[in-house]
Amino acid sequence: MAQDQFVKEVADMEKDFPQWYTDVILKTQMVDYGPVKGTMVIRPYAYAIWERIQEELNKRFKATGHQNAYFPMFIPESYLKKEAEHVEGFAPEVALVTHAGGAKLNENLVIRPTSETIICEMFAKWMQSYRDLPIKINQWANVCRWEKTTRPFLRTSEFLWQEGHTAHATEDEAREETILMLNVYKEFAENVLAMPVFTGRKTDKEKFAGAKETYGMEAMMLDGKSLQAGTSHYLGQNFAHAFGMKFLDKDGTQKYAYSSSWGVSTRLIGALIMAHGDERGLVLPPVVAPVQAVIVPIAAHKGGVNEKAAELLAALTAAGIRAECDTRDMSPGWKFNEWEMKGVPVRIEVGPRDIEQGQAVLFRRDTLEKETIALCDLTARVCELMGVIQANMLEKSRNFRDSRVKTVTSVEEMLTALDGKNFTKAAWCGDRACEEAIKEKTAATSRVMTDDELVSDVCVCCGKKAKTNVLFARAY
Amino acid sequence: MAQDQFVKEVADMEKDFPQWYTDVILKTQMVDYGPVKGTMVIRPYAYAIWERIQEELNKRFKATGHQNAYFPMFIPESYLKKEAEHVEGFAPEVALVTHAGGAKLNENLVIRPTSETIICEMFAKWMQSYRDLPIKINQWANVCRWEKTTRPFLRTSEFLWQEGHTAHATEDEAREETILMLNVYKEFAENVLAMPVFTGRKTDKEKFAGAKETYGMEAMMLDGKSLQAGTSHYLGQNFAHAFGMKFLDKDGTQKYAYSSSWGVSTRLIGALIMAHGDERGLVLPPVVAPVQAVIVPIAAHKGGVNEKAAELLAALTAAGIRAECDTRDMSPGWKFNEWEMKGVPVRIEVGPRDIEQGQAVLFRRDTLEKETIALCDLTARVCELMGVIQANMLEKSRNFRDSRVKTVTSVEEMLTALDGKNFTKAAWCGDRACEEAIKEKTAATSRVMTDDELVSDVCVCCGKKAKTNVLFARAY
Repeated sequence: MAQDQFVKEVADMEKDFPQWYTDVILKTQMVDYGPVKGTMVIRPYAYAIWERIQEELNKRFKATGHQNAYFPMFIPESYLKKEAEHVEGFAPEVALVTHAGGAKLNENLVIRPTSETIICEMFAKWMQSYRDLPIKINQWANVCRWEKTTRPFLRTSEFLWQEGHTAHATEDEAREETILMLNVYKEFAENVLAMPVFTGRKTDKEKFAGAKETYGMEAMMLDGKSLQAGTSHYLGQNFAHAFGMKFLDKDGTQKYAYSSSWGVSTRLIGALIMAHGDERGLVLPPVVAPVQAVIVPIAAHKGGVNEKAAELLAALTAAGIRAECDTRDMSPGWKFNEWEMKGVPVRIEVGPRDIEQGQAVLFRRDTLEKETIALCDLTARVCELMGVIQANMLEKSRNFRDSRVKTVTSVEEMLTALDGKNFTKAAWCGDRACEEAIKEKTAATSRVMTDDELVSDVCVCCGKKAKTNVLFARAY
Repeated sequence: MAQDQFVKEVADMEKDFPQWYTDVILKTQMVDYGPVKGTMVIRPYAYAIWERIQEELNKRFKATGHQNAYFPMFIPESYLKKEAEHVEGFAPEVALVTHAGGAKLNENLVIRPTSETIICEMFAKWMQSYRDLPIKINQWANVCRWEKTTRPFLRTSEFLWQEGHTAHATEDEAREETILMLNVYKEFAENVLAMPVFTGRKTDKEKFAGAKETYGMEAMMLDGKSLQAGTSHYLGQNFAHAFGMKFLDKDGTQKYAYSSSWGVSTRLIGALIMAHGDERGLVLPPVVAPVQAVIVPIAAHKGGVNEKAAELLAALTAAGIRAECDTRDMSPGWKFNEWEMKGVPVRIEVGPRDIEQGQAVLFRRDTLEKETIALCDLTARVCELMGVIQANMLEKSRNFRDSRVKTVTSVEEMLTALDGKNFTKAAWCGDRACEEAIKEKTAATSRVMTDDELVSDVCVCCGKKAKTNVLFARAY
């Protein structure tokens, strides 16, 4: 059976999740390995998802008063060194341009691992008075972080992302922006990617190099590991001091600005795959699916089938559905497998008998359920299903996640819970040494601090007075 | 007078066109210089134009069967050397990454100056049989070409572009694609940028390094110089041989594929500025203008003015116009100047007396004409004006251009015509030595060959038998 053949093609996700991931991304032609180690080619099927992500985020960025721009990828090496923590964090991973135009450069150029330095340098030029503030800019760009261990979408030497950078006259405003964008990300993750996330402040150990505070959103993958899906940083005046971001305030004095930065990347595509997939391959939420509905004609050689399929395609397209009709010279079973592997939310099967009876069969990728629908109701039902499937996927993910967060009060309990593919919530004293000891013993890291009632009065690790709850999980 | 003040701010375009260009792009906040020599920051006002260009081109690329993807920016240095002409053309301008992740690399990496090499390497992996062809892909990316003399948008070390790359089973198909995309560019330049272009084949001297044939589109700037606004290359089997792009054809034999590539860049923004601007600054075609209509309230402190302005803004926005209402605490005159400098197609002035009389004043940036319009007709009139202005700008540009193409039959005549800010059309023998002699004497280069009737039986330079007409012009 064709289905069995396909099942054999991808690894068992329960037994070998990493191999399942690799099989799925390669076989669905989402990605290929680039010739340089650690690089990836984003093929059309994945790039179309990225374009949907861009479109949805651009809407939200614009609605919150941001404008897109583009800054150079070449950063003078000296810039990186102006903010002490920043250089310490990024210097080990940068790629250096030493020669250009046939000559050695006077100063090496860093290919941006992130753009705080060059953007703050420009902001400093652009702000004279408080009237020039706030500056709220976003850029879509490629960035480079040279990593030892790489995996497509999750960690690559070059990746695509957006980075928002803002400058404000006051601390309050900059802090507000940081939290606003964290919440934009959260709403986006839930409503566009159907992926519930935990948000919260990161511990100092896990914060962005150069930030005062980092806030993150963490999503649970199907193997119980956490994936950092986005971050928003309150930078205080750190970069303002380093780059001279000063302005003349209303009171006639020169002040340093406060800044924020926030970003999400092509990592989100990896998150999407690992949050929703199943043994048949991808399961894509309708909002980002490049193809939302695919029509597979059955016994297409019989009179009228292809004509009817084309008619249905036209009606779906006119209704705003991203639809395709698969007229390739392959068996329906082969096509079913391929489109299931590609995660298309709805499949429409239509053959001579269906047409005779004025109906078609709909197959839902998220539930694997079939239903029969009158042809006259088909377009309306497919439109309706887009919302139904999107909502169901979010609910399913939320239930999965909520069932896998365990409150623990000892490191042993934590270890057991982690081995059972769970996140763990524990009370923590605030001491970095405890974080490090936990990582050492369990391979879990602190993901975010949560504001809720303490699960214990004492730290899960050292037994001293606890200050906050922390989600600990193994992470990508 | 405020207008006079502004006029003093930008150089006289008749006397110093390059300075006028620099003044305009900086004062309208389209661009700023990056910290690394030859780089530019594309600020929101220009980036918004680029987004409109992307949107319009994406529509056309998709309609002609292309898909977007993304390939790594790092190309192993050895790849560049696989196609002899290609490396000769690009090696002098590349930037090299020699160190990454704290260590010297085993092989230097070139930052893509263009991506034929890496894309053909991937295409070779993806094509097994004729069923896998054609492959028709586009990418939006940054590229790097280290140039000695740079100017924002026109020539920068890093710029943004799109590059289409296709592979086909037959020569005919690849040639067809090359011409198809040249025509897509031409239609786009005319209908979106309101910029008429000459298209045609480039001489061997001017063709892309590694191409069999290059086709270009050339636009006339207001100083009579030509700007190469886009190119489409027929690559034959050059890259197929270099990268092993082979497939099993229907007849059971292995064959090399035929490929094409084509691109336009942020240069188009420079073209737009220099094709349409005037002594007051930018003049933007409505299709790409970030702001299509701006409302300037007059005597805004008087009751009802701001309310009426907000109402008009809402109506314009609802009608799909990209509109803004300028409520800043500045004089109307100051605002008029600023928005004129920014090239906004329509300005709407509304004050207490206008409101009393149920009317507003419209100002057209392209003709500098004012008209009075009843408030109830305003939205409809602005919508109509978008089309009227777009068409008028194209016609004006076409008339300007057509009046400045001179047929010449001697190099002396050519020199006179060029000095008078014209393009010249001349008959040419096909000999590269004549092209070089002409360049030496006139500083003009061959732009494209034209298919029309020979303007002379003999070559404008050497007097030998002519083979084709060529447009010669001084160029950016």
